[in-house]
Amino acid sequence: MADVKRIQSDIDKFRHITEPCDAGITRIGFTETYRQGSDYFKDCMKKIGLTVREDKVGNVYGRLEGSEKNLPAIMSGSHLDTVRCAGAFDGIAGAVCALEVARMMKEKGVVLRHPFEVVGTMEEEGTRFGQVLLGSQFITGVFGGKELDSIKDPEGNTLREIRRSYLPRNVCPAYRKDDEILAFLELHDEQGPVLEDENIDIGIVEGIVGISWLTVTVNGFAGHAGTVPMPLRQDAATGACRLVNSIALHTSRCYADRATATVGKLELLPGSSNCIPSKCTFTVDIRSAQMSNIDELIEYIRKESREVEKECNVEINIYVNSRKEPIKLNRDIGNLIQKSCEKLGYSYRKMNSGAGHDAMVLSSRWPTAMIFIPCRKGITHNPEEYVSPGALEKGCETLYNTILALDHKN
Amino acid sequence: MADVKRIQSDIDKFRHITEPCDAGITRIGFTETYRQGSDYFKDCMKKIGLTVREDKVGNVYGRLEGSEKNLPAIMSGSHLDTVRCAGAFDGIAGAVCALEVARMMKEKGVVLRHPFEVVGTMEEEGTRFGQVLLGSQFITGVFGGKELDSIKDPEGNTLREIRRSYLPRNVCPAYRKDDEILAFLELHDEQGPVLEDENIDIGIVEGIVGISWLTVTVNGFAGHAGTVPMPLRQDAATGACRLVNSIALHTSRCYADRATATVGKLELLPGSSNCIPSKCTFTVDIRSAQMSNIDELIEYIRKESREVEKECNVEINIYVNSRKEPIKLNRDIGNLIQKSCEKLGYSYRKMNSGAGHDAMVLSSRWPTAMIFIPCRKGITHNPEEYVSPGALEKGCETLYNTILALDHKN
Repeated sequence: MADVKRIQSDIDKFRHITEPCDAGITRIGFTETYRQGSDYFKDCMKKIGLTVREDKVGNVYGRLEGSEKNLPAIMSGSHLDTVRCAGAFDGIAGAVCALEVARMMKEKGVVLRHPFEVVGTMEEEGTRFGQVLLGSQFITGVFGGKELDSIKDPEGNTLREIRRSYLPRNVCPAYRKDDEILAFLELHDEQGPVLEDENIDIGIVEGIVGISWLTVTVNGFAGHAGTVPMPLRQDAATGACRLVNSIALHTSRCYADRATATVGKLELLPGSSNCIPSKCTFTVDIRSAQMSNIDELIEYIRKESREVEKECNVEINIYVNSRKEPIKLNRDIGNLIQKSCEKLGYSYRKMNSGAGHDAMVLSSRWPTAMIFIPCRKGITHNPEEYVSPGALEKGCETLYNTILALDHKN
Repeated sequence: MADVKRIQSDIDKFRHITEPCDAGITRIGFTETYRQGSDYFKDCMKKIGLTVREDKVGNVYGRLEGSEKNLPAIMSGSHLDTVRCAGAFDGIAGAVCALEVARMMKEKGVVLRHPFEVVGTMEEEGTRFGQVLLGSQFITGVFGGKELDSIKDPEGNTLREIRRSYLPRNVCPAYRKDDEILAFLELHDEQGPVLEDENIDIGIVEGIVGISWLTVTVNGFAGHAGTVPMPLRQDAATGACRLVNSIALHTSRCYADRATATVGKLELLPGSSNCIPSKCTFTVDIRSAQMSNIDELIEYIRKESREVEKECNVEINIYVNSRKEPIKLNRDIGNLIQKSCEKLGYSYRKMNSGAGHDAMVLSSRWPTAMIFIPCRKGITHNPEEYVSPGALEKGCETLYNTILALDHKN
């Protein structure tokens, strides 16, 4: 069995490797604090007996050789960085469970046919450079020499400059060849409330949703709150709220849990309590496992905007800032996760991830799967994020059994 | 006839008495710039032959004695201060039209039975201290010695300290006795679009609306935009927009031009495009000439909030920050304005003022009336504020004729 005390002890160690912050944990890539976290992770891997290395963008690996030569590695892990004032489980749960899997193998004397690699990735959250999924994009080769110069921190320092003072000597290339890796498995807390709500142990992630980000601008006409009668107004706030309301209602009614639409940022101008707003700008974050749902929702927003323009006498502009296709994860490994759950007597459900993960990037090169475990109320990117010991144990057991099954099958 | 060239020339002089600002005019009370404006106004009054004085809070007066002794004065004017980056007509139009009325009397050799006083009031906009209608509240005695110490600028300097370096020698008391004033007439641009929209020359102001200011807080539960399915959300933005939409629709449908409800300020927390908002705070500015309409609207918002709480799974708190009763202006003087319009062949309509004015304060002590003239698109508190020469001329003629009728009648 996975030893949940060891998993928790590792999570607690990482909890204390943080920059000073009011609450929670701040461990941003390429900082002194991140170096401490990364070195602690390397020490853990060394103690287990793994061969440790670090690559040219700070991803760290621990490798356990398999019984057969020249086979590709089964890789598992997650990111070691956090957002500012983060919880203790996002990323780290998956990294330390992969570590525990290696420990279990060593303890039980289990030797896989394939090598097993534990990985701790760099800057998945993108807090340092505003570039998410950084480490994994160098592993897959989506990023390379060009990005070392083009990716800069807010002070204008390039990644190439920054890594120079950060990295130890003797680092290996970040890019991995096709035949080096058999598969990637990432355990992560769900960061949503579904598993807890349905009282389910394990989420088998079928895919990662596609995302589109819109900026909507509603232009009205400013006026004094007391002197312009309601029928003569061109109130940007009224127009915007009418549209936001329609978007939320329509998405809930017609897509239920098949798509999300979120207005997280909204600004009124001039923003005085006694002024009719002349302008309102808001964002819409639309996600779904089917791109057609996203496109339908964008189309709905465009159509509904024409209605709101007429009703509220405003002008609405919609700008699509980005549009990312959904990703399908590997179905065969998903089936192995399912079989492991059945064998272990854990409840499970298939689901999509609404958040991006390194698995999303790595799936473009290698068969990739994700195991979700429940977190309390779905709270994440927040000091209150909490994953129970039971959930960690079941997640780790599922990961261990799936890796063994995967090794056996290939 | 009123000489509109002189009126425009005075307005243009004041247009250039401004602190440096990107556009428009900034002339805030008790500043060097305000002193220039106030001195220019005093010079104009002296040139006409009025007896000029300044009171202890910087209100300035020019007095033309009447033919009979011991009669109370007919007073007319408006404020000389502006908001930041203001238009050229708000306040000044009424002050310079009163000036023109005095000029017309002198030129025509018209001597009223009553004294005629032109007044330029201080800090009506409240930009310096956050205290609107300052000068007129000292004239009526609503404010006195206590307020000289309690009213402070953002740096903590009291009005008593500030006026010391601002005022000239030989100032008179601000408080006016009951029998000193017969009536107050204020000409002002409408600051709304109604007169322009209906192509009407003169607005006869029957009253000034009552106002209530609410702060509404919608509490939801934060979450990741991608991981919380729509049906499980407690989205503060959705709840707030649903409520704002209802308020605007209900007020438009049920009150048309009898009440206004304005949401001018709205803030989302945490305010990230990929976060479900946990909290939304917005203001509601409600105005009507009938307090019962305001109370009904507050009651509607409370009731509708209970519905939104259920529908959106949020908690809504409503705080009533202020509640000011509507003011009725003097009907007899209103009738004299109407007769003047009829005599002059000007179109007119009775209306309420949605904005506060010095007339509101002075009406608590003396019979008070207001004459509105159209401004382009109702734009005010904005460099684009514009009142046509024709509107100024008709307004000034109406004011002149009404003052003569009032003098004759009393």
